[in-house]
Amino acid sequence: MHVLWVLAHPDDRSLNGALHRDGLEALAEAGHTVEVSDLYAMKWNPVVDRDDFGTDGERLHVGPASRQAFKEGTLSPDIAEEQAKLRRANLVVLQFPLWWFGMPAILKGWVDRVFVSGFGYSIPDPERPGRSKRYGDGGLAGKRALVVTTIGAEWSSYQPRGIDGSLTELLFPLLHGTFFYTGMSPLRPFAVHDANRLTAEQYRTAAAALRERLAHIETEEPIPYRTQNSGDYDEHMVLRPEVAPGRSGLGIHLAG
Amino acid sequence: MHVLWVLAHPDDRSLNGALHRDGLEALAEAGHTVEVSDLYAMKWNPVVDRDDFGTDGERLHVGPASRQAFKEGTLSPDIAEEQAKLRRANLVVLQFPLWWFGMPAILKGWVDRVFVSGFGYSIPDPERPGRSKRYGDGGLAGKRALVVTTIGAEWSSYQPRGIDGSLTELLFPLLHGTFFYTGMSPLRPFAVHDANRLTAEQYRTAAAALRERLAHIETEEPIPYRTQNSGDYDEHMVLRPEVAPGRSGLGIHLAG
Repeated sequence: MHVLWVLAHPDDRSLNGALHRDGLEALAEAGHTVEVSDLYAMKWNPVVDRDDFGTDGERLHVGPASRQAFKEGTLSPDIAEEQAKLRRANLVVLQFPLWWFGMPAILKGWVDRVFVSGFGYSIPDPERPGRSKRYGDGGLAGKRALVVTTIGAEWSSYQPRGIDGSLTELLFPLLHGTFFYTGMSPLRPFAVHDANRLTAEQYRTAAAALRERLAHIETEEPIPYRTQNSGDYDEHMVLRPEVAPGRSGLGIHLAG
Repeated sequence: MHVLWVLAHPDDRSLNGALHRDGLEALAEAGHTVEVSDLYAMKWNPVVDRDDFGTDGERLHVGPASRQAFKEGTLSPDIAEEQAKLRRANLVVLQFPLWWFGMPAILKGWVDRVFVSGFGYSIPDPERPGRSKRYGDGGLAGKRALVVTTIGAEWSSYQPRGIDGSLTELLFPLLHGTFFYTGMSPLRPFAVHDANRLTAEQYRTAAAALRERLAHIETEEPIPYRTQNSGDYDEHMVLRPEVAPGRSGLGIHLAG
């Protein structure tokens, strides 16, 4: 596989920096090639603005403006370069410390700016006139996507009944709403807890677990979200009453 | 009330800009005072970095570095100014277009940079040695918090069984993990759907609904999340088996 590893941490001497190097080694040992977007080192600009699209003083409609610039090849070069990296990748890794239960702004803004209309969304489905390819199909179909994250709090509070919420549900906007939405196959997140107080031995355990995950990453089963065209959703994109009957919550979008 | 209204949209001629002006008028008519942080107009820097804390070349530990800079009054002035606005506010409004099922990066980075250790989290609880005040109590206790958002997609797909996920669960990291975590009382989000194709009449209906919400915002019931000290959670911060028995998912953190 060819891997794009996107890292969002301000200091490469951090736990994230160490795990990043472990991950790159493990991928190389498994015979994969890797390219890295180290967003802090790149001084990545995370703010969507009219400069992205070369639009002048007219009112900015982000969707249409991004779509036109994408089609015409006039997107800001930093965006186009990340899109080229994504196109080349079979696996995309997003690595970040969990800040306020989500991605650091620099990484959210990598998604905001790179996944423009026509690339990340609003891909017409020729077989279903008037409908876009999404949720299981889309511009990034065929790629796998993995979150690697570090979390200050203990493991227990992120379990299905923990006060912080389960990590998979906290990251639903990314795993389901971004990876799966654009056609990618989302893998279970890899998380290291107690990130601010790891002993050397705990670090070695975490690094070994990451290496083990990456050694088999090509074949592991993705999170089985229901696809848009599975027949499970009605024409308003609401789950049919006979599917997961009587239930609600983000978990109903898991098949089976 | 005194209100802090934080706006994250790149063009004030947008639907968000129009709703923002409607909201400010409604608050003034109700006798409230308002100050605004228009993040795009302020060219807000959303990226947490060592410059925030005045740390030199040593390894950056974001939590401790932010805590120390907060205590010593050496945080970057733009952060300190937003903290002062928050301290003055009885109601905090975050207004944004929903991008990839969450906040635009410029706003996520307002949270990341402003809610530092000692201000937004890690507030010791004198009554519970070794534990921090959070989830219902904290540095911002007593304030109300409202999300105002615009969404391109239709209403149905964001309902409890809609494919996109319910808005309250998609925004759980903000409503529960940020507002409630820091002690604020989270209100139900105000959302305008079909944001890219509103007719003039639909816009007037949305604006009237926003004005009506704001007219009574001082007394409406917040989302009833369970507090950390409610007794519903055990010492590992996992919901006790007899509370919401057999259930999981983010909805179990709602009382009743």
